[in-house]
This record gives sequence, C-alpha cells and structure tokens, in this order.
Amino acid sequence: MSDWLDEIKWDANGLVPAIAQDHASGQMLMMAWMNRAALQLTLQEGRAIYWSRSRGKLWRKGEESGNVQELKEMRLDCDADVILLSVIQHGGVACHTGRPHCFYKRMQDGVWVTDVEVAKDPKEMYA
Amino acid sequence: MSDWLDEIKWDANGLVPAIAQDHASGQMLMMAWMNRAALQLTLQEGRAIYWSRSRGKLWRKGEESGNVQELKEMRLDCDADVILLSVIQHGGVACHTGRPHCFYKRMQDGVWVTDVEVAKDPKEMYA
Repeated sequence: MSDWLDEIKWDANGLVPAIAQDHASGQMLMMAWMNRAALQLTLQEGRAIYWSRSRGKLWRKGEESGNVQELKEMRLDCDADVILLSVIQHGGVACHTGRPHCFYKRMQDGVWVTDVEVAKDPKEMYA
Repeated sequence: MSDWLDEIKWDANGLVPAIAQDHASGQMLMMAWMNRAALQLTLQEGRAIYWSRSRGKLWRKGEESGNVQELKEMRLDCDADVILLSVIQHGGVACHTGRPHCFYKRMQDGVWVTDVEVAKDPKEMYA
C-alpha cells in the first residue's frame, strides 16, 4: 500500500522539495529534498529523512548531530509537488551552522544580512 | 547593484524555490519558483513575482485573482538555494483552489485527506 506515494509529482530527478517547520511555533526551519524512499521512510520511522543531493544518499536528519526532526504532521500542496512537514526539532537546531533554522540571512537595503545567532557550536554538533 | 542576486545558487534551469508565509501568523502559504528577473522584480515592486514553469513566463501573483502578496521580508537560507518570503496575503487566499494556503492535504493513515475548506469560489477569483 503506497498509493499515496504515487500521487506525488516527482521532478525529473525523482525528487520533491520538503519544507520543515516547527510543530509548536510554526517557525520555518529548512527546505531539503526527498526521493520516494526518503518520503516513505519519513512516514514509516516518524522522523524526517531527506535525500542528500550533494552526497547522493539518504540523509537521516540528525544522524550525526543528534538534531532529529520528529514528525508530527505531513502535508502535500495543491499541485502535489511540495511536501510540508511539521516536526519537533530535537536539540533546537535545524541548521548545520548551529542556528535554530536555516533562513538566517535577511535582505536589507540590497544586502543579505545575517540576523540569527549561532546557538550551538557546529564543532560540538559533529564531534 | 545586484550583487545580492549573484549570491543565489540558481539550479540547472536558472531557478530557485521560493516559499511564502503569512507575515503576521507565520502560516505557510505556498511554494513556487523564481528566476533572476522574478526575484529582482519581487524586491523592486514589493510584491511576490514568480516564474511560472508551466506557462514559461513571469507570474505576478494576484495579477488575475487580485490575491497579491505584499512583501514584508525576504530571507535566504544557509546554502543560498531557497528563498523565504514573509507577505501580506491580500484577499486572504493564496491557493488557486480558493483556499487560504496550498497545503490542504494532510497525511492520515496512508491517505492524503483534504482538511482545509475553500474560502473563495475560484470561478469568482478568475472571472
């Protein structure tokens, strides 16, 4: 039974963008990509599992850092080509830079300005 | 002066995903795509302008429906390959189906279930 996977409009690379937001606050955390296996495993294991395009393999979010994303809700958009995850962000840090989320650069007067501080030292996260 | 555009990691098609959320509530609204012109015009005109992949042209969100997305804040993620817009959603409807947002299908027991009601008749929106 995986009809629900057949409803997804996978792109030419067999991927779909997946947005993660914090379940309690609604804070946007990150966007990454999933292939069919990643999406199926995400639901099955109840945690976000992405497809790492750079490494060319499944990426169990938090497998190294411990910053697991526990799945609370999964949504699909009108065109069936974007996934939205509501998650509990364990460790409070979604970004590999040690920040709570990845969208820490804000456009200000024609310049991208970093306005979110590092909460955890990446060296400790990946030690 | 468009150095800020050069910092974006455009994909093979010259596009970048752009997520829109409601400025006041943080509600996720939709995800679409932007090319360089769309992103530049979005900042310039202070409203979301996407690149329609299906129609192959700029898409001034709300040009037909009136449901303009007024730009309040623009963010970029750590990898510089995802844009996040905070907007005022005029008309209260982001989705072409007449719903407040596009993520109205929720995974429930292996099935995508629609749990967000239509707020505006699409026939009226595009009349």
